[in-house]
Amino acid sequence: MRSTMQDCPLTIAAIMRHAATVNGDRAVTTATGEGGYRTMSYRELGDQAARLANALRRLGVTGDERVGTFMWNNAEHLAAYLAVPSMGAVLHTLNIRLSPEQIAFIANEAEDRVIIADVSLVAQLAPVLPLLDTVHTVIAVGDGDLDPLDSPHMRVLRYADVIAGERPVFDWPAMEENSAAAMCYTSGTTGNPKGVVYSHRSSYLHSMNACTANASGIGYSDSVLPIVPMFHANAWGLPYAALMAGADLVLPDRFMDAASLIDVIESQRPTVAGAVPTIWNDILHRIESSSGHDISSLRLITSGGSAVPVSLMRAYERLGVQIVQAWGMTETSPLATVAHPTPGVSDDERWMQRASQGRPACGVEVRIVDDEGNPLPHDGKAVGEIEVRGPWITGGYYRGRDGEKFDDGWLRTGDVGRVDPQGFVTLTDRAKDVIKSGGEWISSVELENHLIAHEAVLEAAVVGVPDDRWQERPLAAVVLNEGAAAGPAELREFLADRVVRWWLPERWTFVDEVPRTSVGKYDKKTIRARHADGAYDVIELRD
Amino acid sequence: MRSTMQDCPLTIAAIMRHAATVNGDRAVTTATGEGGYRTMSYRELGDQAARLANALRRLGVTGDERVGTFMWNNAEHLAAYLAVPSMGAVLHTLNIRLSPEQIAFIANEAEDRVIIADVSLVAQLAPVLPLLDTVHTVIAVGDGDLDPLDSPHMRVLRYADVIAGERPVFDWPAMEENSAAAMCYTSGTTGNPKGVVYSHRSSYLHSMNACTANASGIGYSDSVLPIVPMFHANAWGLPYAALMAGADLVLPDRFMDAASLIDVIESQRPTVAGAVPTIWNDILHRIESSSGHDISSLRLITSGGSAVPVSLMRAYERLGVQIVQAWGMTETSPLATVAHPTPGVSDDERWMQRASQGRPACGVEVRIVDDEGNPLPHDGKAVGEIEVRGPWITGGYYRGRDGEKFDDGWLRTGDVGRVDPQGFVTLTDRAKDVIKSGGEWISSVELENHLIAHEAVLEAAVVGVPDDRWQERPLAAVVLNEGAAAGPAELREFLADRVVRWWLPERWTFVDEVPRTSVGKYDKKTIRARHADGAYDVIELRD
Repeated sequence: MRSTMQDCPLTIAAIMRHAATVNGDRAVTTATGEGGYRTMSYRELGDQAARLANALRRLGVTGDERVGTFMWNNAEHLAAYLAVPSMGAVLHTLNIRLSPEQIAFIANEAEDRVIIADVSLVAQLAPVLPLLDTVHTVIAVGDGDLDPLDSPHMRVLRYADVIAGERPVFDWPAMEENSAAAMCYTSGTTGNPKGVVYSHRSSYLHSMNACTANASGIGYSDSVLPIVPMFHANAWGLPYAALMAGADLVLPDRFMDAASLIDVIESQRPTVAGAVPTIWNDILHRIESSSGHDISSLRLITSGGSAVPVSLMRAYERLGVQIVQAWGMTETSPLATVAHPTPGVSDDERWMQRASQGRPACGVEVRIVDDEGNPLPHDGKAVGEIEVRGPWITGGYYRGRDGEKFDDGWLRTGDVGRVDPQGFVTLTDRAKDVIKSGGEWISSVELENHLIAHEAVLEAAVVGVPDDRWQERPLAAVVLNEGAAAGPAELREFLADRVVRWWLPERWTFVDEVPRTSVGKYDKKTIRARHADGAYDVIELRD
Repeated sequence: MRSTMQDCPLTIAAIMRHAATVNGDRAVTTATGEGGYRTMSYRELGDQAARLANALRRLGVTGDERVGTFMWNNAEHLAAYLAVPSMGAVLHTLNIRLSPEQIAFIANEAEDRVIIADVSLVAQLAPVLPLLDTVHTVIAVGDGDLDPLDSPHMRVLRYADVIAGERPVFDWPAMEENSAAAMCYTSGTTGNPKGVVYSHRSSYLHSMNACTANASGIGYSDSVLPIVPMFHANAWGLPYAALMAGADLVLPDRFMDAASLIDVIESQRPTVAGAVPTIWNDILHRIESSSGHDISSLRLITSGGSAVPVSLMRAYERLGVQIVQAWGMTETSPLATVAHPTPGVSDDERWMQRASQGRPACGVEVRIVDDEGNPLPHDGKAVGEIEVRGPWITGGYYRGRDGEKFDDGWLRTGDVGRVDPQGFVTLTDRAKDVIKSGGEWISSVELENHLIAHEAVLEAAVVGVPDDRWQERPLAAVVLNEGAAAGPAELREFLADRVVRWWLPERWTFVDEVPRTSVGKYDKKTIRARHADGAYDVIELRD
């Protein structure tokens, strides 16, 4: 029996049409530095997207060719988010924080034809251009010197010139919802970066999910501030979700220091924001060190990328702002789980739920498996590798790379953790960072979380290092708070009350800062390598 | 370029799986009368759905055969909502308020094989059975006499017996998301009822939409009370939305009087409820006539089916409860528009927006067209027939009936109104009820709204009646409040301050009640017919 329902594809063009019509008077506001802002209505944004699509067509972009972006969070990046997929091409957000070689590898594998780049990023882009095989045109957004981009095989044009003569209407093609809309590469902490190709459908459903109450509940009374970069996992889906909901958008451009972000919040009064915990930590320190700040326009902060310390959530609660932890990755669009507490629980339970990585929305399924791939119970005790599936989860990488990351329709996330009966996921480690000591697993993340709860500790990273007797043993790399003093014996004693005895690290090193990856996570590969090189001053304790 | 996203269909089975696992400890509570309630967890509901699917299979239901329900809002109806579509069959909710002939027409056209019926509805079902061509089995839910259902060609079984021996697991088949999940017939105020066939996808997307902030924002901190019948347009999608969100459900069964409903609200403390304005009016009168009631657990009431008077919304606001108006029909799953005010508007504007039928969610598109089908501007002034399209809007009727209701991919809703630049839809009439006087349109609904604002008026229905000079002229049928007195001259004078002169009705009749259709709307066909028969005592005024 056939359904009588209409056949309406879920597309980025549908999001754009909705935003530019019934929400045409809502606006995207972009920071211009030193407390300045510029604003464009969604009606104007729709016009700009049409101009950009006309310009890209004129410059030769056809079919599903890839258009790269090398940009901060701003209105021009947002117009590309709409124009490129809606014209049938594929938006490819390039991570500006990678090395020139990595960026070139990514752009070459994806066969990008055009790159739209912020002029403020010319210095980062210039060394990439000579390495590119398929890009024929760079469109530079903003004023400033373009000479560093001079290259014999590359056309370099100004965005303003390119769109100036174009019409604000475009004959947007009918799109099949499963066709490619955008691609993004993993940050590649192991091996080469791998491409994830989002469909119109997956982006649309991910946005709808972000608008549901169990996720971020974004609606048209909101104003959304994506601090997480638009070149990183779709800025957690916030731009498309805000456009779908008819919420305003506030974009910080390149002004990402705590003072600038506080100014954005105080002057633009967003209600929802998303950024990694480090950013919220920086903002908190600045607010606490100078009086009179008010960021209480925020009703919800989503945070993730690394575990959000409960102390940080509590500190923001005192400022009248709720931080909700979420978990996901480039491969999951990225929202897979969100940590809203369930109703009617005790205060303790509430904080345990909020300290977890959260539970999946309807549609996303989570399971944990052991070393042999056998599913483990969701009893809040069993620990295994987390696998996910759902309509906005990738089922492979571009060009079939790294097939072993997929298990019978499930994505192997490389994260290790527990799942409780209500679906709350608690990460205990990355699969590659878990410390295998005498056949048992030690969670580096749990040790880190306990260590940073010590008053003398600012940051702590724990890695596994080779051990003759136990195969691997934990090494703790600790950054102390300014002026604080604490030795390995004291910290070990502190941990002894919190974890089983055989987890206690014998090896300790005190450092000025923990090395981080391009997306701000602890770079444990580097920490392990440094230790192998003997660059760390390691203290060994034994019972 | 192919997307790398997983192929995960949007199905009722996915909603069921999510509800019965991560939200397995949430519950559906059903009223049993006289302040009694019974509760079933979503884990048990999943088990019951599996038992029912096994039983239906054993009783011969195969493929996409239709399984009818003839039931109030209760846990067994909810189990059928899950089991029938998830096993690949098609749920067909029969409207218990139609005539036996209409019900038989509908069940025969849909070729229902089995009907699950509440024992409390045996009297209504008995006269239908002899008229049925394809039903071979009736499954009766609850205790009570089944003798009236005795029929030589019909197997009549008890639900409890049927599911008793069945296993609480079922091998749910993989479903294609565009396949039929459920069907529902329009109430057929004009001509025969027509079937709408929902797909798994349309029901899933409609539910996701209900969970978004711009609609009802249903999340797992909610408890949802669908008073609107589950046999009528999917109870406005509330059951599936609550299951998807992991919200509790509270179902009133057949106890639909104001006193029982107030008891449900006070004892079960739902946060979201949906019912037609008449119900909220009845509840309000009862609350106002006896002190000490508290229905403030409700954070949101959605109401529709007929226009929600602003006075009713204001009265509930004083009780601490927000009524939000929504608009739709069986053909639109049914949520098409929702009337949340936009941020930053004046109090006057806010009430104008709330008094409208609302604006569409992303995905649903609305337009108005003139008599020739030409699109009219969305300027808040032009009046035309409203057409809609979107992924949960029907593109036809079952068996291709009434093809003229579809216009180049759009559903012609038969509603007439205006659309403002922000997408707010204001209905001014049904296309068939609009009064065509001297070539111009008079809105019967606007006249009715003004009339009920008069303190003496309880209800008012305005219809067009033949007029020698003007082709049609309005006739007002008025129900006065108990003990109130107002004559046609006074009411006409009252209207004269509110509408243009040529809209003022000359013909007036005062009645004890306005006849209503099976779904509680004014039955204007009957009113017009009665007048034609001279049954109304009509007073004619002239200037």
